[in-house]
Amino acid sequence: MKIMVLGGGGRAGQAIVQEAVKRHHDVTVVTRDARSSQARVPAGVAVLERAPLALTPEDVAGYDAVVDAVGIPWGSGHGYLHLDIAAHVIALLRGQKTRAVFILGSASLAMPGQDHPAIEDFPEVAASQPWYDGARYQYYEWQYLRWVDNVDWVAFSPGEAFMTGPASGYQLGADTLLLDATGQSHVTTGNMALAILDQLEQPTAHQKRLAVADQ
Amino acid sequence: MKIMVLGGGGRAGQAIVQEAVKRHHDVTVVTRDARSSQARVPAGVAVLERAPLALTPEDVAGYDAVVDAVGIPWGSGHGYLHLDIAAHVIALLRGQKTRAVFILGSASLAMPGQDHPAIEDFPEVAASQPWYDGARYQYYEWQYLRWVDNVDWVAFSPGEAFMTGPASGYQLGADTLLLDATGQSHVTTGNMALAILDQLEQPTAHQKRLAVADQ
Repeated sequence: MKIMVLGGGGRAGQAIVQEAVKRHHDVTVVTRDARSSQARVPAGVAVLERAPLALTPEDVAGYDAVVDAVGIPWGSGHGYLHLDIAAHVIALLRGQKTRAVFILGSASLAMPGQDHPAIEDFPEVAASQPWYDGARYQYYEWQYLRWVDNVDWVAFSPGEAFMTGPASGYQLGADTLLLDATGQSHVTTGNMALAILDQLEQPTAHQKRLAVADQ
Repeated sequence: MKIMVLGGGGRAGQAIVQEAVKRHHDVTVVTRDARSSQARVPAGVAVLERAPLALTPEDVAGYDAVVDAVGIPWGSGHGYLHLDIAAHVIALLRGQKTRAVFILGSASLAMPGQDHPAIEDFPEVAASQPWYDGARYQYYEWQYLRWVDNVDWVAFSPGEAFMTGPASGYQLGADTLLLDATGQSHVTTGNMALAILDQLEQPTAHQKRLAVADQ
C-alpha cells in the first residue's frame, strides 16, 4: 500500500512508519522540516516537506491511506491544530477511496460503565493542566469526524498512558477506555502502530473510532 | 477596510460586494472562475481566481475581514463544503486580528420559545428535501465555530426566506428565529449585506451568531 504519514517524525508517527516499512509498504513522511526529520526517518522512506495544512489535493493523490499522527506539544497553546489538520485531511479526501486515519486522545473515551466522553466530566480545574488544550481539541476532532460520511475514516484512541515502547500485542475496543487486570490504562506506540497497520491491511472499521490498549 | 469575499459572485455575495463598494471599501472577490464571474463583479473590485479551499495564508494576509458567502446549490450533495470552507478560513486566520464572517442557515436557529436549533426537531422525512444537506452542514458549521476562541468570527443567520432583494432596513437577534407581525420569517440579500457591513464597520459581536430579519 501507499501510505502517507503526517507527523511521521514524531513519537507515534515513528512507530507507525517503522511498522509500515517492516511490512514493505510504500511510505511517505510529511514534515515541515525535512532536514531535521531526516535522522528519524528510516532509509527507503520518501520525505515530503510540507506543513500539514499546506497539503494539496495533488500531494495526496494516489495514496491508499493518509495517517494523521501529528503530535502537538503540551502547553504550546496550539491544540486547535488537532482539529484544523483533521478538517484539512478530510476536505482533501472527500468522496475518495483513500482511507484517513486519526489518533484521538483518551479523554474522548467513556470511562467503563459510562456512556459519554470522560472529558465532559472533568472538573473545571482540569483546564489549567498542560495536556488539557490538546485533549479538548481531540474531543472536538472526534465530534467533527462523526459528521463525515463521505470519507473512509477510522480513528484510534490510546489509553491514558501512551508510552514509547515496543509492539507486543494489543486489544481493541470502541468508545470506552480499556483497562488491564489491575485497572490501569496503557498502550505503547508500537502496539498503536500494530493496530493501525492491521486495520489498514484488513479493514474492519469504517467511520468509527477504536480504543487500543496493550494486550 | 480591506475585505475579501468568498462566493462574491453568488446571490448573497453580490449584495455584500455591492454594499462594500458603496461604502468605499477595498474589496477582493475570490472565485473559482474569474471569467464567468467577471460580469457579476462591479468595476473597481479585485478578483482572485482561487477555489476557497486552496486559499493560502499569503492570500489572506493584510485583509481586515474575510467574508464566507459561498452558496452551495441545493441538491448538489456538496453541503459538506459549508463546513470544509469554514474550517479552512478559520485555520488560515488562527491567532490573527482579521475578522471572519460566516452566513449560516436558519435551521440552526431556535424557534421562538425553544432553546435548541430547529433542525434537531426536524422529522426524518426532512432529510429527503433538497435543502436539507446544506442546512445540516451549516448546523455543523455553527457547532464548529463555537469551538473557535482565537479568531474574531461572527456569523449571520437569515430568516426562513432569504430572498434576493434591496436593502431597506433590518433587525438583529441572536440564536432565535425572528418573525414579523404576521409570523413570517424573511430577510433580503440587501438587508443581510447591510447587517454584515454595519458589523464590520462597528464591531459589537465577537465569536457570536446573529439572526437577521427585514425590519
